[in-house]
Amino acid sequence: MPRKGIALVISAPSGAGKTTLVQRLLREFPQFGYSISCTTRQPRQGEVDGKDYVFLSREEFEQRRAQGYFAEWAEVHGNLYGTPLAPVKDSLQRGQDVLFDIDVQGAAQLKLSLAEAVFIFILPPSMTELERRLRSRALDDEATIERRMANARQEMLESRWYDALVINDDLDTAYDALRSVFVAASLAPFRSPDLPEALLDS
Amino acid sequence: MPRKGIALVISAPSGAGKTTLVQRLLREFPQFGYSISCTTRQPRQGEVDGKDYVFLSREEFEQRRAQGYFAEWAEVHGNLYGTPLAPVKDSLQRGQDVLFDIDVQGAAQLKLSLAEAVFIFILPPSMTELERRLRSRALDDEATIERRMANARQEMLESRWYDALVINDDLDTAYDALRSVFVAASLAPFRSPDLPEALLDS
Repeated sequence: MPRKGIALVISAPSGAGKTTLVQRLLREFPQFGYSISCTTRQPRQGEVDGKDYVFLSREEFEQRRAQGYFAEWAEVHGNLYGTPLAPVKDSLQRGQDVLFDIDVQGAAQLKLSLAEAVFIFILPPSMTELERRLRSRALDDEATIERRMANARQEMLESRWYDALVINDDLDTAYDALRSVFVAASLAPFRSPDLPEALLDS
Repeated sequence: MPRKGIALVISAPSGAGKTTLVQRLLREFPQFGYSISCTTRQPRQGEVDGKDYVFLSREEFEQRRAQGYFAEWAEVHGNLYGTPLAPVKDSLQRGQDVLFDIDVQGAAQLKLSLAEAVFIFILPPSMTELERRLRSRALDDEATIERRMANARQEMLESRWYDALVINDDLDTAYDALRSVFVAASLAPFRSPDLPEALLDS
């Protein structure tokens, strides 16, 4: 009895620990697929068209966008990025789970095009701790850290419509929360439309 | 930052393994409260009014029922049983989780009076296995087993509106599913109305 795939959307401010949590999720549940995004930026050394990204001209991108081709899109540093909707829907229908690691604005667009997606927002245990983590990475200059903290505040204020808020204080506890949301989503009756009738014949 | 309590409602056909799963849940999450039911049946030896049940006359029960006092009620073997709604709502508001171990008809009534409750239905891995389990308990005569199997079919067909369907084939897998639904429910933003604003000041 195959179930429908789950579109799992995970957002978090920089420094909240999303990457570690997502890597652990993919180790326990390696069945997740990723969608291949489209972009108007130039390919980098070694990037393969149709594998890393689908590289489009700005005109092609805007045409597709106007046709509702993208589940979500954004402009970052003057380049356009978008997630094609149709392949994601095909994957979900086939029972393939799809993971989206995406910011709040992209997630809000996904909410409109993929209403059955499951939205998780990862929160830092405190702003003090978030700032400490950003500084201890030693990746960013002062202005970047201040921008990241301001973005974090803004995103956290917009997180109320998510399905689950996961505070990443203790990593094991946060991971248990994250995986629980995914496992619980897999049990929804609408994702297993042939259950329980199939059991009645067994 | 206290969260609102969760009303967790668990239903299952006889023999699906609900009791074992619930006992394990209460070991891991001992914070659950039980609601005290009202009944019109006579107290049994040792039962304490107000502790085991609130014992009411049929007239008292029917008066309360007419006033919308009960979250759900049922007549079983000529006696009335009901769950008072107000104490459950008070518990939830105080952050106390409340467990309901209840049949599909009671659960459907709860769905109307406690819309934010979380509903879990436990399924047997197959009807053959359910019958095998009922027979191996050696508790029931043939007529009772047949009645339980018929009830199971009916309840399973009515389980589609539940939030989660948990197949109890392997006990550890089923328990992981059950606890995941509870953990995921605890992460819903509406149950922690002061989050994430409180984090912004931390």
